[in-house]
Amino acid sequence: VAKRLEKFKTTIFTQMSSLAIEHGAINLGQGFPNFDGPDFVKDVAIQAIKDGKNQYARGFGVPDLNSAIAARFHKDTGLTVDPEKEITVTSGCTEAIAATILGLINPGDEVIVFAPFYDSYEATLSMAGAKITCITLRPPDFSLPIEELKSKVSKNTRAILMNTPHNPTGKMFTREELGQIASLCIENDVLVFSDEVYDKLSFEMDHISIASLPGMYERTVTLNSLGKTFSLTGWKIGWAIAPTHLIWGVKQAHSYLTFATSTPMQYAAAAALRAPDSYYEELRKDYKAKKEILVEGLKSVGFNVYPSSGTYFVVVDHTPFGLPNDVAFCEYLIKEVGVVAIPTSVFYLDPSEGKNLVRFTFCKDEETLRNAVGRMKERL
Amino acid sequence: VAKRLEKFKTTIFTQMSSLAIEHGAINLGQGFPNFDGPDFVKDVAIQAIKDGKNQYARGFGVPDLNSAIAARFHKDTGLTVDPEKEITVTSGCTEAIAATILGLINPGDEVIVFAPFYDSYEATLSMAGAKITCITLRPPDFSLPIEELKSKVSKNTRAILMNTPHNPTGKMFTREELGQIASLCIENDVLVFSDEVYDKLSFEMDHISIASLPGMYERTVTLNSLGKTFSLTGWKIGWAIAPTHLIWGVKQAHSYLTFATSTPMQYAAAAALRAPDSYYEELRKDYKAKKEILVEGLKSVGFNVYPSSGTYFVVVDHTPFGLPNDVAFCEYLIKEVGVVAIPTSVFYLDPSEGKNLVRFTFCKDEETLRNAVGRMKERL
Ligand SMILES: CSCCC(=O)C(=O)O
Ligand SMILES: CSCCC(=O)C(=O)O
Repeated sequence: VAKRLEKFKTTIFTQMSSLAIEHGAINLGQGFPNFDGPDFVKDVAIQAIKDGKNQYARGFGVPDLNSAIAARFHKDTGLTVDPEKEITVTSGCTEAIAATILGLINPGDEVIVFAPFYDSYEATLSMAGAKITCITLRPPDFSLPIEELKSKVSKNTRAILMNTPHNPTGKMFTREELGQIASLCIENDVLVFSDEVYDKLSFEMDHISIASLPGMYERTVTLNSLGKTFSLTGWKIGWAIAPTHLIWGVKQAHSYLTFATSTPMQYAAAAALRAPDSYYEELRKDYKAKKEILVEGLKSVGFNVYPSSGTYFVVVDHTPFGLPNDVAFCEYLIKEVGVVAIPTSVFYLDPSEGKNLVRFTFCKDEETLRNAVGRMKERL
Repeated sequence: VAKRLEKFKTTIFTQMSSLAIEHGAINLGQGFPNFDGPDFVKDVAIQAIKDGKNQYARGFGVPDLNSAIAARFHKDTGLTVDPEKEITVTSGCTEAIAATILGLINPGDEVIVFAPFYDSYEATLSMAGAKITCITLRPPDFSLPIEELKSKVSKNTRAILMNTPHNPTGKMFTREELGQIASLCIENDVLVFSDEVYDKLSFEMDHISIASLPGMYERTVTLNSLGKTFSLTGWKIGWAIAPTHLIWGVKQAHSYLTFATSTPMQYAAAAALRAPDSYYEELRKDYKAKKEILVEGLKSVGFNVYPSSGTYFVVVDHTPFGLPNDVAFCEYLIKEVGVVAIPTSVFYLDPSEGKNLVRFTFCKDEETLRNAVGRMKERL
């Protein structure tokens, strides 16, 4: 194995999902719904396959999808982007992240990430030879320590890689925090790579794209995907939006990482993004109910539950149950309780920072959530 | 744009396909069929979508597809591989190539490629920081200059990245050439990355996987895909097969490049790979007829056509028509004749080596091929 990947293990999601199957445990680990995506999207994919839309798509996206992405971005942010010149469709947001980093970051460039962070960030930055600077968000609300950020931005800083709504914590960056990040980036000529795949899953406040702040669009790559919003995580449709001088690098990397993305699924994604507002309202309402069940359930089990304003995750402190760390707790939870959660230490550069925290997802039907809570109440 | 990608342009396939649309030209450039894939495969994808197989697949492939790949590889090569431990499904062979190189090659490692080579090879090797050593296959039959290869393999050589049947020339490596490569690799402890996406499109001799030669499986990553064999280039299903000590690096890179590949398409791919032999025989027969039409047509137009034993491409010498180089010829062909071909200079480290050669594809229905030949006869 190449040195750039030597320190990484099988992703925690793969590990935990296979343990879930092996032990017949209820999987509140990896973030995929146990219900299906909507028929109005699936039907378009089926029709596209029937209609013979089965050959290579244009590398950076079928025109229909690029238009739909631009239209949705306009609706969400007020920004007008050229669908043909400022958007690249990718094979999931994971590829959008990889293409952005490999396309824009040189070996030795400094990139700032906020811990806890999604596991692919560190691996992909390592593939690009970036120097990682890590700033830990402060529990209980996972707020941004802005003075620390200021002290770490330097003329060697090339980019900040951020995520809002934030996986695993459910934190949403406030307008004030985003403004502080924006000022720092503008002052120091720093780029922002903003992973916003949970933008439609916000419960307490509206999601804000940092690209929409004054002076920020020109230095931001906004990353998003279909999977979370449309409960179709297995279709692997993602995209990057950025001004032409930035998207070029992303497009180049994408050309040689995967070249193009599944054609029939792209037509369906275009239809999905044109969903009426009522679709998104319904989605939020459903997830809010699920969240309530899980959060109240976890509290009643005895966990200290951290506030989550977005995503379909909540983080809890497991220490009341007396296990030495998050990994040991999750092991116990799988084997003795029959529930899978995700240990958070893998999301920190210094794993000990995550040792008290584990993540549960509520992207499951209500009965599954109730059963999981029931098992924990009975057996923990 | 990061330095690793600075020298690369929009891929030639993207460039030529958009020119084809712009000029209303017949596209014999990019290799995608203008006919559809088989219903027995499409139907499985449709059923999988209907059945709700729409969430994340296992990162390295749905078990059913891994089994089908192992079974087909066994049938083709006699080799028995563990479907769970020696195979990774990827988002097309382009991703399999990228994951293999980023997963196994360190900066400074020497990798040998044979020119002309598929354009992603150079870009991906550059992303990994590899040192490229290039050996030019010798026209008219694009044979391997084995003495030159011997002289260039050294203790710094980490891998040979090869392709048989060979795009763009249609050359198939003979058992003798493969044996010579194998001996050199074994003697010098060199890996082979073997791109075999056109394995089922062979017209003069049977395809041989270099992994099947004695002592080679343990040092070979065999790369393949669904698209060419099943006329579904837009589905982007590829895979890598290698012993556990090599596949690990590929899996790791894949985990962080795309994580997983479209779930419903994987079920369909599994069904495809279980096609009876008659499917492959029919495919070969159809393509042989198409090849005949194009090759005879190009000869009648006045081209010097190089022999092609596999793939769906033929290379011709355009110099009888008096244009200074391949790019100028292709431009003339699009604008004045209304046919798109691919200039080959982009497939050489030294572009001047390709200046007399252009590539045509015959993965089009017979009428399209005849029309293209007709236009060339009339207007060239
Ligand atoms: C790409 S697998 C992980 C799914 C996910 O986003 C998560 O569980 O955090
Ligand atoms: C991935 S686009 C190019 C298709 C192809 O393999 C070719 O035309 O050579």
